[in-house]
Formats: sequence, C-alpha cells, structure tokens
Amino acid sequence: MNQRTQEILSWYESDNPGTRTNLARLLNHGKLAGTGRFVILPVDQGFEHGPARSFAPNVLGYNPHYHFELALEAGCNAYAAPLGFLEAGAGKYAGRIPLILKLNNHDVLYDEKDPASAVTGSVKDALRLGCVAIGFTIYPGSAHSTLMYQQLRELSEEAKAYGLAVVVWSYPRGSGLSKEGETAIDVVAYAAQIAAQLGAHVIKVKLPTAHLEQAAAKKVYEAEQVPIKTLSERVRHVVQSSFDGRRIVIFSGGAKSDDKNVFEEARAIRDGGGFGSIIGRNSFQRPRAEAIKFLHTIIGIYSGETP
Amino acid sequence: MNQRTQEILSWYESDNPGTRTNLARLLNHGKLAGTGRFVILPVDQGFEHGPARSFAPNVLGYNPHYHFELALEAGCNAYAAPLGFLEAGAGKYAGRIPLILKLNNHDVLYDEKDPASAVTGSVKDALRLGCVAIGFTIYPGSAHSTLMYQQLRELSEEAKAYGLAVVVWSYPRGSGLSKEGETAIDVVAYAAQIAAQLGAHVIKVKLPTAHLEQAAAKKVYEAEQVPIKTLSERVRHVVQSSFDGRRIVIFSGGAKSDDKNVFEEARAIRDGGGFGSIIGRNSFQRPRAEAIKFLHTIIGIYSGETP
Amino acid sequence: MNQRTQEILSWYESDNPGTRTNLARLLNHGKLAGTGRFVILPVDQGFEHGPARSFAPNVLGYNPHYHFELALEAGCNAYAAPLGFLEAGAGKYAGRIPLILKLNNHDVLYDEKDPASAVTGSVKDALRLGCVAIGFTIYPGSAHSTLMYQQLRELSEEAKAYGLAVVVWSYPRGSGLSKEGETAIDVVAYAAQIAAQLGAHVIKVKLPTAHLEQAAAKKVYEAEQVPIKTLSERVRHVVQSSFDGRRIVIFSGGAKSDDKNVFEEARAIRDGGGFGSIIGRNSFQRPRAEAIKFLHTIIGIYSGETP
Amino acid sequence: MNQRTQEILSWYESDNPGTRTNLARLLNHGKLAGTGRFVILPVDQGFEHGPARSFAPNVLGYNPHYHFELALEAGCNAYAAPLGFLEAGAGKYAGRIPLILKLNNHDVLYDEKDPASAVTGSVKDALRLGCVAIGFTIYPGSAHSTLMYQQLRELSEEAKAYGLAVVVWSYPRGSGLSKEGETAIDVVAYAAQIAAQLGAHVIKVKLPTAHLEQAAAKKVYEAEQVPIKTLSERVRHVVQSSFDGRRIVIFSGGAKSDDKNVFEEARAIRDGGGFGSIIGRNSFQRPRAEAIKFLHTIIGIYSGETP
Amino acid sequence: MNQRTQEILSWYESDNPGTRTNLARLLNHGKLAGTGRFVILPVDQGFEHGPARSFAPNVLGYNPHYHFELALEAGCNAYAAPLGFLEAGAGKYAGRIPLILKLNNHDVLYDEKDPASAVTGSVKDALRLGCVAIGFTIYPGSAHSTLMYQQLRELSEEAKAYGLAVVVWSYPRGSGLSKEGETAIDVVAYAAQIAAQLGAHVIKVKLPTAHLEQAAAKKVYEAEQVPIKTLSERVRHVVQSSFDGRRIVIFSGGAKSDDKNVFEEARAIRDGGGFGSIIGRNSFQRPRAEAIKFLHTIIGIYSGETP
Repeated sequence: MNQRTQEILSWYESDNPGTRTNLARLLNHGKLAGTGRFVILPVDQGFEHGPARSFAPNVLGYNPHYHFELALEAGCNAYAAPLGFLEAGAGKYAGRIPLILKLNNHDVLYDEKDPASAVTGSVKDALRLGCVAIGFTIYPGSAHSTLMYQQLRELSEEAKAYGLAVVVWSYPRGSGLSKEGETAIDVVAYAAQIAAQLGAHVIKVKLPTAHLEQAAAKKVYEAEQVPIKTLSERVRHVVQSSFDGRRIVIFSGGAKSDDKNVFEEARAIRDGGGFGSIIGRNSFQRPRAEAIKFLHTIIGIYSGETP
Repeated sequence: MNQRTQEILSWYESDNPGTRTNLARLLNHGKLAGTGRFVILPVDQGFEHGPARSFAPNVLGYNPHYHFELALEAGCNAYAAPLGFLEAGAGKYAGRIPLILKLNNHDVLYDEKDPASAVTGSVKDALRLGCVAIGFTIYPGSAHSTLMYQQLRELSEEAKAYGLAVVVWSYPRGSGLSKEGETAIDVVAYAAQIAAQLGAHVIKVKLPTAHLEQAAAKKVYEAEQVPIKTLSERVRHVVQSSFDGRRIVIFSGGAKSDDKNVFEEARAIRDGGGFGSIIGRNSFQRPRAEAIKFLHTIIGIYSGETP
Repeated sequence: MNQRTQEILSWYESDNPGTRTNLARLLNHGKLAGTGRFVILPVDQGFEHGPARSFAPNVLGYNPHYHFELALEAGCNAYAAPLGFLEAGAGKYAGRIPLILKLNNHDVLYDEKDPASAVTGSVKDALRLGCVAIGFTIYPGSAHSTLMYQQLRELSEEAKAYGLAVVVWSYPRGSGLSKEGETAIDVVAYAAQIAAQLGAHVIKVKLPTAHLEQAAAKKVYEAEQVPIKTLSERVRHVVQSSFDGRRIVIFSGGAKSDDKNVFEEARAIRDGGGFGSIIGRNSFQRPRAEAIKFLHTIIGIYSGETP
Repeated sequence: MNQRTQEILSWYESDNPGTRTNLARLLNHGKLAGTGRFVILPVDQGFEHGPARSFAPNVLGYNPHYHFELALEAGCNAYAAPLGFLEAGAGKYAGRIPLILKLNNHDVLYDEKDPASAVTGSVKDALRLGCVAIGFTIYPGSAHSTLMYQQLRELSEEAKAYGLAVVVWSYPRGSGLSKEGETAIDVVAYAAQIAAQLGAHVIKVKLPTAHLEQAAAKKVYEAEQVPIKTLSERVRHVVQSSFDGRRIVIFSGGAKSDDKNVFEEARAIRDGGGFGSIIGRNSFQRPRAEAIKFLHTIIGIYSGETP
Repeated sequence: MNQRTQEILSWYESDNPGTRTNLARLLNHGKLAGTGRFVILPVDQGFEHGPARSFAPNVLGYNPHYHFELALEAGCNAYAAPLGFLEAGAGKYAGRIPLILKLNNHDVLYDEKDPASAVTGSVKDALRLGCVAIGFTIYPGSAHSTLMYQQLRELSEEAKAYGLAVVVWSYPRGSGLSKEGETAIDVVAYAAQIAAQLGAHVIKVKLPTAHLEQAAAKKVYEAEQVPIKTLSERVRHVVQSSFDGRRIVIFSGGAKSDDKNVFEEARAIRDGGGFGSIIGRNSFQRPRAEAIKFLHTIIGIYSGETP
C-alpha cells in the first residue's frame, strides 16, 4: 500500500479497521489503484429517470450484467447501483469489483417540488451482497432534507459499526433554491460540507458554476475574494469545504455531453485537487467499445498518462 | 426440471435456495408447468372494489373456496389473495396450488387522489398459510409512493431471508400522472423498472398503450425510435425494461372485456416475450364452466396449443 | 389431491396450512405420490459413522450432488441430510425434490454410553434452504433424553409457526436399555409414542424384534395377548402406538443387508399398515444403477406394483 | 477472475454473494492468487501454548505487527489470529491482507482430558476489524464436542448472514481417542467430514498418518482397499471426505520441523489434491529472512514453480 | 499531550476515539500524568477477603469515601473498586479522579479449588458512575477459565463499543496449577498474553518468581536462555509477552509487606519496562499520612524523582 493511500486512510481516524479496509478496497481497485483518484460507474438512472431515458440510447444497458462488465473492463474503482441491479449480478460477479449499494432512490413519476428519496435497501443487504459501501442521496434545500439527513444518520451509524464505508450523493434541490442555485458554488460547497458533517467518507457533488445563490454567502465570497472564477478554482473550493481536503470528494458527470467538455472537466477536477469522477450516462449510453475508450481517457487524465 | 425453468431460476443469482425453490414451485405448477409461462388467478377485488362489484355477476365468487377450486381446475400456476380469503381456504386446499399472500390492500370507501395501500398481512402469515410468495402493490406516481416503496423494502428483505419469493403489482396512479398516463408505455415500462430495482422476483403491470406521458421520456422514445406501435412491441419493451427480460413480468387482464380481445392480448404478451397473465375479473365473474374454458384458451395460447 | 392424501392431512388438524402444505409436498412427490406411502433417502451417515464407512463402498457418495440425483432418479418422496450436505446442493437442485434438514447430529469419535446429538442447524436454515421439514433425533433411554426432548420442543414449536413439518428419528439408546432392548417391540412402540406425544408429524423408528425389554410392559403384553409374533404384527402395533395410525410412521432400513431380506421387511411394513421406509446405506452404498433398481423394487412393493 | 477460482466459488451455491466475495478475496490474494491454492499464516500459539513457547525462538514474534508484515512479505493468502493480535494491527494494516478472526481459543494452563475452547470473539468483531472470515476450532473426540459444534453452528449462521466465510480448524482430541488416533487417517477424514457437514467453507486438519483408529472404520478401509499408504494418498482421501473435493481443505504444518520434511509434505498435499497449508510455527519461529525464503519455497511448490 | 502518551495511545489502533480518550484520562491524571507510568489504588479486598481482614488494621478504610480521598491526595492515576464502593462515593467525587469499576468479584465464604468470580456490575453501571474503564478478573488455570474468558469477551465488546477501556486482572489459579505455579514466570507471562489476546487495554498481573511451572515451557526457557534471573528481567519478559510492550502491563503489590521490599519491587518494575503498580493493602492498611508518604515514594520511583 503506497504513501498516498495510507495518507488518505489516515484521515478516517475515528473509523474502525473494517471501514478503513473497505475504503482501501475502493482506493486499490482498477486502473487508478493506488493513485488516490477515482472513477466510479453509477447506474441508478433506471430508477431515477426511467428505463428508456437511461438505456434506449444503448440497449445493452437494460441488462444488469452489462454494467458489471463495463465497470470491470474500463477499470473503474467501483460500481454503484440500487438493490435490484446489484442482486441481478452480485452472484455472478462476486469478488470482481467493489460494489456500492445505493440505499435510497427517487423516481420522477411523481414530480414534487421538494423531493425525498425512498429508502430501498438496508445495511444488511449491503453485507449479504458483498458491498464495500452504502450509498445515500440527500437533497439539501428540500423541505424534506431533515428526514433524509436523519435516515442517513441511522444507516450510517449501522454501516460504520459493521465496517462499511458511507458514500453520500449531496444534491441541492427543492423549494429552498432556485434552479440555477442547485449548482451555484456557494450551494455546492455547502452541500459538500453538510455531507462531511453528517459523517460521509466519500462525497459526491455536481460540478459547480460561478453563480452565488445566497445573499449572505455572496457577501463573504466577495469580501474575502474566494477564487471561484475557473472550474478548477471552484473544485478546489469544494474540496476545501470538505474538511480542507480530508474527505474524498468526487464529481458527477451529469447528462450526456460533448466528450471534449467532459475531458476538460476531468482536468479541472484533477487540477483543483478533486478526487475523481462518478460517470454514468456519459459512459453506459454509448456503444461499449466507445465507452471503454472514453473511460480510459478520463482515467488517463487522473493517472497523469493523458495530459 | 427442464432447461427453460433452470434458465429462469439462474437469473435470481443472489437469492437463497429457499426463494429459488418457491420460484420453481410457481414455474412448475398447473398446465403451464415447465413452459416458463404463467397464468395466475388473483382475487383481491372484494377488498379493492367491494363485494357486489366483484362477485354479484357470479355469486359463487362470494365463497372463498370457489377461487381455490377455479384456479385448481383451470390449471393456473398460482392463486393470489388477501389474508382473509387465504385463511378461509388454505387449510382445505393445503398443498394443492401455490399461494401468494397479497400483503397490502386498498379500498375505495375512502377515495383519495394519491392512494397508498394498507399493509394487511405479514411474512409470517405467508409462511403459516403455506404460501410460496408475498404480493405487494406499489403506486408509482402517488404522493405516497415513497411510503409504499419502503414498506415493500422491509417486507421483501424479510421474505427473502425466509425463502419466499416477492411478487410486485406495480400500478402507476396518483397526482403525478394523468389518467391516460397510468397505462402509457413510458410509464408502465418505468413502473416495471422500479419494481425490478426494488428487488421484485415477479413483476405485474398493466398492458400499456402507445401513449407517451412524460415529455422527457417522449423525446427519447422518438429520438431512439423505440418500437411501441403494436401491443406486442410494447410488451417487448416492458420486458426489456425489466432487466432485459431477466425478471419475470406478467400482465394484468384488467376489467371484464370481450373474450376475443383478451385472447388477442394474450397472443401479444406471448409474442412480445411476456411471461403470462394474471386474470381475475375476466375469469371469476363468469359461470364456472365458461371461466374454465376461457382460462384454458388463454393457457393454450401461452403453451402454443392454441394458435 | 386424492382421498388418501386428504385423509392423512386431516389427522394434522391443529397444524397451520403451511405445515399441512409441506406435508402434502412430502406426500405428493416421487413415484409414491398420492399413495400415502413413503420412501425417503437419508444421508447423514457421513456425520454419524464417518465418511469411509459410509461412502467407500460406492465412492460416488462422497459427492453431495450424488444423493440429490439418486433420490430424484429413484423417485423418492424426499431427501434428508445435515446442513453441509444440503448447502452443497440446495442451490443446484432447488425445487426438484422435497428436502428435510436434519437439525441434530452425532458422531462416534467420542463414544458415550448415553448419547446426545449436537444441534447443527436451525429452523431458519431449513427455510433459507427451501426445506419442507426439519428432522431431529431423540434417544429415549439415554440419560440425556430430557435435553433432547426439550431441544426438539423448542425447534418444533418454531418450525410449526413457520409452516414446516417435523420429522423425528426416535432411536432408543443409552444406559436405560440393554442392547437387545433398543429394538424390543415394547421399547420401539414406546419410542414411537414419545415422538408422537412430542408433536412429531412424521416418526421414524427401527424395525422391532419380538423381544420385550421392560418387565412392567412384558406383563401387559402377555396378559392382553398383544399380537407381536410376526414382523407385520409388530409394525401394526407400532403404528397403533402412534396415535392409532393417525401419525405417519416410517421404518429405517438399518445397515446394508441382503436384498431379499429388505424386500420382505418392506412387505411386512406395507402389510402391517406402516407408511414406508427410510433407506440410506442400502441404497447409496451400491452402484447407482443397482440402487435405482433396488429402490424401484421397494417403491413397487409399497405401490402394489410388485407383489 | 480465472476459471479455477470461478469453479471453486461455484461449489458454495447456497451462500450469498457477500460470502462468495470474501471467499474470492481469500482466493485472489498473495502469490497464490488465482491458483486455487492457499498458504495461510496462523498465529494463535501465544494463546494456545503460551508466549515463550511460541515467540522465544524468534523474539520479533512477540510484536503483533510482525506477523502482519510476515504474511504480507511472504505473499500469504491470509493471516489468522485471535482478537487481541488482530486488534493490535488491523488499523495499521487495514486493506492489505485478508484477515481471519479466530473466534475461540484454548490455553494449557488448565490441562483437561476433554478440551473445549473458549469463545473469545464475535461475528461483529470480525466485521469491525475488516475480516473476510471467522475461524473456529472444534475438537471431535472430546466429551465437549457437542458444545463446540453448537457454538460453531450459531456463529456460522450469523457469519453467513453477514457475508463472511467460515474456516473450521477440526482437530480430533479428547478421551474418545488415543494419542495416535488424533492423526489417524480414519479420524482425520472423519473430522474433515464433520466440519463440512457443519457448514464450513474452508476446513483445516492435521496431516494424517496411516494409522487406523476405529475398529469399525478399519474393517471398511481394508475391505474396500482405500489407498492410504502414501501421504499423498491420504491427503487425497481427506479431500474426498470433504464432499469429494467440493470444500477447500488445507493442512496444518504442526510443530517446527525439518525443512525438507515440510517441503515433502507440501508436495504430498499438492499431489493429493489438497488446497494448501496453514503454517505457523515453522515460519514465525525462524529469522524473518529465512521465514520468507521458506514460505516462498512452499508457495513455489503449490504454484508449480518449485518442483 | 506529550510524545510518550501519544505513542502509548497509538498502540490501540483498532479502538474508537472514546476508548482512546479514556485511556488518555488514565495516562494523564495524578502525579504520574504524562510519564506513561501508573500507580492505581484498588480496593476490592472487602469483597475478596472480608471487611475485617481488609479494614481492621486502619478502620478509616471501612468508609468508602476514605479511598477516594487517599487516591486523590496520593496522586494516583485511578481508583478501582466494586459496584458498592464506587456507588458510595462516585457522586461526591465526580470528576476528581478516573474510576475503574471492577465488574466481577469473588468471596472466600465459599472456598473452591477452581474459582470463578461472579459478575457484579455492568458496562452501563460503569457509564452511569462516570468510570473510564471496566475491570475484570480472569483465573487462567481454573477449570472455569472458559466461563470467565467468555464473560470478559462479552463485557469487553460492549465496553469498547461504548468507548470505555478494559483492565484485566489476570491471576493464574486453580487445579491446573501448583501453588508455586501461580506466580511462576512462565505462568505469569502466559496469563499476560491471554489477557492481551482477549483484547485487554491494561493488564494487571502478579510479580513473577523465577520458578518454571510447565515442563513444555521450561524446555523452551532453557533452550532459548530467556533471561529471568532478576525480578527486573522477569518484568521485562512479562512486558514482552504483552505484545512486545504494546499493551500497558502493571503489577500488583500483593499482601502487606516490608516497605523496602515494595520499593525494590517498584524499581524492578520500572527498570524492566513495566508500566507501574496497583497497590491496595500496602497503602490503605496503614495510617493515612504514612500511606501518602509511602505512595509518594513509589510514585517518585516511577517518575525518576526517587532513585
């Protein structure tokens, strides 16, 4: 185990060896093993957006085995999915790639202003499926954020006692925020801080814009001249907001987008001190060979092989 | 045990042998034993719509024993009902036909826009009554969908630990959807996906229309030219949306309808790769002899005996 | 379900439909389905006597899959074994044959005068492995019989609540009895009665001799002229001692023996009103083809095909 | 994951993906990763024999970190130890090597004829320390064997539910056996069978001699001419007795011995189809450099690099 | 917090911050704060030997408050006592001195050859009384050692989860040992190892003699020439046997003795790398002023102030 991996593990000083073991498994799998960087494949969009919106562009994605294979062949650090998708492949692929069980999910058949995800799995499910971590989404800004924070607290306490790691998707949404505010730098940094304060080991946020949502925050950002002009600066600020970089923060790729754009974003994450990307639709919605090439380029950016 | 049955069981790779045994019992009972196809008799309409609406057309149906006998004589794979109906016959008919205990039910004496079924049975009830599976209804699109998903999660975890199978009725309803949207192809496919992601072994949905309800989905269906013109194509898309056919999906017959129509639907289900039908009112609301003949015709369609 | 099967089930009038369902599964599987007769394959000798003594005569028996296949091909009603043997095949053979999990076992590496088996499995194990029943051995006559009766009571109560059947091996042994007394007719009849009183659904005893062990009993047998001269009479008396035939009683084949002898015994069991045989070493210790032929002959005796 | 590893995992067909994942971790770590062979370092002798007898020959062994480093540098598949030794290093070495928590231990300050180990750790301890398996010792032949079988049963059921593997040390001892009988081939084969029937995933036994302890067994070994003359033949018979090779069986090295002898034994294990060695005193009681060289030779024998 | 204290805390790498906090409280209280050395006042003799034998020599000792005051004034690191004594003073002296609740005790009104202490307090008691640690006595060598190890295991797991430290009195006694053997160097070193393997944070043993009790151990001590001639060498060996000094080991003073002798022993403990003394009867059985002076001398020996 190299220096960097040990350094990262040392930040989780209150966790038991079981949790640190599972964090080490995340850090030491795939092409980025040992670099302290991550590319994770998440496939919860079937639940979150519906099957056709998720898988029609590349129909192989309807098959749960496809994503295990994609994550394996691409050399991702881990594969994250809801209960059903993991149950449908965890037996065949047992022991081949670290798994993260998403313990809550949200669909858009009921479109609410203040969303709250349903709890769809348990810590015991994660253990019986051989996962290294639980995943959980919170929506800071929602009228129901308190409910989600409390669900996370309970699941997180149990997961840590059983030696699992906790990955939190912290996505600002709801009536407390404008649409633009959901990715505003002050809001994203705040969302990262909330996840860290709730005890997350790994934090997943969206890439922030330079927009400042909250008046009280805006004043401080301007007075203190917090550097947030470039994407790389904003990534650095989010990392700083996650316990000065002492928690792993990774960024989501979002909707399918121009490749060049995604690569530029990965470079900004890397240069801003971010720990990596969680890339779903941009990878599994294109033909397999292209997806592998695409993911290898991003992995190369993080490993330093690609400039 | 034939090839096809073994293939279907192999999809449930994370389940214990107990659950696989009970799935095998479903697959190997009745006239469709070994075909990988299903015709299931469900009688929860007494609770869901009231007794007269359900049983006045054929008063024999008021008697709980009637439905056990109907399912047996017709050669159905299983009989599904709420606690009361099963308790009123499970002793006499013990060991004759696989039973599915519907663990939640909803009545229309209180008519709400956003329905949520009440939990009316337990996993232990299912075991003491000798059932092979629990049944549970979710209403994606309802403001209370989260509650139902979470109830299902808990019951499902317990059922799986005790070796039972989980059958989910996934019926889009509620203020998130238009009336037409409840059977729209994008919505039904989505509902099937949600049930699968929640860990269902068997998914029951309504037959979908070609309507597209959600704007974001519509764009994708059109862009990707997902074939949804014929009923058979739509069935195929729903099956695809259920883990690429790696989960058993059966279709409900709905309200009493013209026989020819029902037979055409069965053919479309068969040709679209659907696994079968769950037929209640169309069978128990007609005289027994007619019902048997009617069900045999449908079973014949699935077995290939009837063209 | 035929008359006889229904009659047998009717004896278990206090049991829930789940337990009766599992009894029906035992009654309705294999070549003797529907006859009310049983031939069960038990393979716990690896634990009870050691592997070489059990499997060296036919080395295929070392493989746990072999016994599933043997029971299937022979058309036995069920296969009974300890935890390890069932775990090693219950996945592959899920749903093909009723399974009985032997919940206690005894080895002969420590040879005690008053034996007590160790509890080696749980009711929850039986459920997760898809079993229809638990099996449990008691040694009436042992100084530790009380312990075993109490263990059985607890497991049996739990098994019945979860809808499983209870099969009791009632083998008189221990310092309370002479060697000859272990198979004495008064003792075997007594052992059957104890199992029945403990709530067993199915009772397994050894074939009794005409010896009378207990003085107080002897007096009565002689005074009342209880007919025990022929094996068939003795079987009838054991069946009578099992609630006048209202509990299923089957007889163990014992060590490997001359075929003619075994067939004669089966005829005596049949003619005495016994419900069948549980045949281990006499079947799995010979080449597979011979074993099948041998078991088919016995099954024929019970079904009436063989005179 | 290669063919052989997948084949081995396929034997554990009733286990959940979590347990299979942890078995895969054992199979895929160290220099023997992917070969289906094992060299495991166990250090429980401090408890079992006392500290000086264990560590005075190489005083570095008093330090708990030493054994983690030794197992790592040698490329062992896993390191097994009691609670104290694991707690004293699991933090520092988190994620570097699969750990097995020995859940029971026995000391010789009270020397009883019929030993029973004390339970010294829990399944939850194993999870919080990041272990892949629990370890447990049984003493078939002891008057207290029943107690130990039952403790194992409970711990094993819990461990399997939480996705851990179960490693059983099956060491015949106690008043039921002569001293010579403890390693007699019939007894060792029996001990392996008992562990397998109790549900062990990995079985550890001592290398057997050609002695036959039990009269009833002796008769069968001679009648069936079971080949047990060479060590390799005896290993093959023990493997056969472990579900015809469908359970992983490894052999303990025993007290410190001549190197040539140990290498010959490893070759016999390899040639007899054994899965590997668990080597404690022979490795940690010599200087580190020598120990590494020694272990590499054994690993080479299993991998085929050393003839 | 100084270097040495941090070093000692670093050994407890698998413990949560709560346990490490309580260990730090022990390390940082009294006159030896920050030295890594300990003098602890234990008063359980009222239970263990009876009140008059314990307190008649200095009747102030009958009063529970006396011992709190003595420990405070002397500058001890902690005060250890059974439930009653702590309950009788923990309110008044709350927050003034670290407390250790002895969770088991033994009296001599029933004098058995193979003693086992009764559990007389709980982890919850320790928390409600504000203790930093639980204390527990084991008697290796007793026929009941298994029972005590298992009680300790359970209490220890609970204590660690709640952030308490665990202090184990490891006193060899019972029919497995000669009287002389109870303090034999091989036996005391073994007892320390057992406590460490059971997960103790702090180990308390008696000062060992040069006697060697066990034949198998004697051979090794002689062959390896383990230095055990002087008391200081023996202390060093016991410390080595406690995970090479990575667990805190303190030594008990035993019955009242000549002061010079006690001081010599303290010097031997100090020079042998022992962590300190636990001194009961030698302090509380003399007049308070003398006791304070006596303890200050010992503390001076450990701090280096007294030569």
